Amino acid sequence: MSTKSPVSQLPPSERTRVKRLPARAAYERATIDAILDEALVCHVGFTLDGQPFVIPTAYARVDDGLLVHGSAASRMLRGLAAGLPVCVTVTLVDGLVLARSAFHQSMNYRSVVILGVATLVSEPDEKLRALEAIVDHLIPGRWAEVRPPNEKELKATSVLRLSLAEASAKIRTGGPLDDEEDMSLPCWAGVLPLRVMASAPIAEPGLACGLPFPAAVTHWGVDRNRIGL
Amino acid sequence: MSTKSPVSQLPPSERTRVKRLPARAAYERATIDAILDEALVCHVGFTLDGQPFVIPTAYARVDDGLLVHGSAASRMLRGLAAGLPVCVTVTLVDGLVLARSAFHQSMNYRSVVILGVATLVSEPDEKLRALEAIVDHLIPGRWAEVRPPNEKELKATSVLRLSLAEASAKIRTGGPLDDEEDMSLPCWAGVLPLRVMASAPIAEPGLACGLPFPAAVTHWGVDRNRIGL
Repeated sequence: MSTKSPVSQLPPSERTRVKRLPARAAYERATIDAILDEALVCHVGFTLDGQPFVIPTAYARVDDGLLVHGSAASRMLRGLAAGLPVCVTVTLVDGLVLARSAFHQSMNYRSVVILGVATLVSEPDEKLRALEAIVDHLIPGRWAEVRPPNEKELKATSVLRLSLAEASAKIRTGGPLDDEEDMSLPCWAGVLPLRVMASAPIAEPGLACGLPFPAAVTHWGVDRNRIGL
Repeated sequence: MSTKSPVSQLPPSERTRVKRLPARAAYERATIDAILDEALVCHVGFTLDGQPFVIPTAYARVDDGLLVHGSAASRMLRGLAAGLPVCVTVTLVDGLVLARSAFHQSMNYRSVVILGVATLVSEPDEKLRALEAIVDHLIPGRWAEVRPPNEKELKATSVLRLSLAEASAKIRTGGPLDDEEDMSLPCWAGVLPLRVMASAPIAEPGLACGLPFPAAVTHWGVDRNRIGL
């Protein structure tokens, strides 16, 4: 979602202030939003009976909230709706950093950590808009192409919203940070950039003849990839 | 790491048994190992003062253990070394699944969830082998090309091992699972495959002239990508 937020900078709370390598921290909403809008899955952390669980799931950002959905019967959704503290983390891996020493091998990445307590989105129109955002986060415009959820499907689905009030980003960019005394080692050093790319879409067998690739897929390809449609 | 494990099938514990969509669950060690060996980062979940945290980090699998490393001073490493329950999750996104209804939009993915308590790897040779595995997990053979860690670097680094005894995988493959009554909707349906790909390596400025791309990077390109070196 490209919705602009009125909040441009989040003051870090004691919990979201980045403690390891604080120079990599970012608290600007534009930075946080860009990472959330680019990634495909988030990892949701919650604790049950003292045991943490980390579950990957789809999501969307709308304004200053992160939205996740799932089966109304799921342990995770029920726990979060009941007010369990949650941590949602989103990570983009941008490259491998090849340094001249083992110690300085690294990765370029952009990550966001959000802490808080989620709330159930139960108002029918708000819930529908949230589901639209989650579908369109992966494939912009897809919602308009498909059959919307019916009563039964809506009932089987829970949607949760987590405020971005306690969010922070951590970013590493650039080449290796080698020690001065390693600079002359006869060892290649630099960055191997990585990105998520799409390959040619695989149409369902039995798809009615002549149905075009959806605008949605083309859009994804053009904006987020080099799929070359 | 391609090390074979003698354990071929893990009986799911009550905690690792996949409860949502159990048909997607897998408990075979070969399946779990393949996912762990392919992904680049894991998400480590732990709880401090009732608040879960989920932190992305590099790792490696060796035999039936997952290894992570970090600053000896880090909150996460110290907490885990002290015996906090942990959940490590690894996720590969393989594609977007475009169904004919909003409800059935999905993703193809392979994920592993590991529960347990980590232990500090303190025996010097074992610790060095663990660091080698973490470096070589990202870029096979890189360890042999770079300066090994010195005393000071080893002291500043902690390594933790988490047993794979309580691990489970969850996998979705294939096309959309549309409802029978949606089959005739005039809507493209299928899968947009996604993968992580590398682009051309970026050498450090000042790199000695004539140093070749490392065998390590070439290897990564050939085996895991279409970098075309």
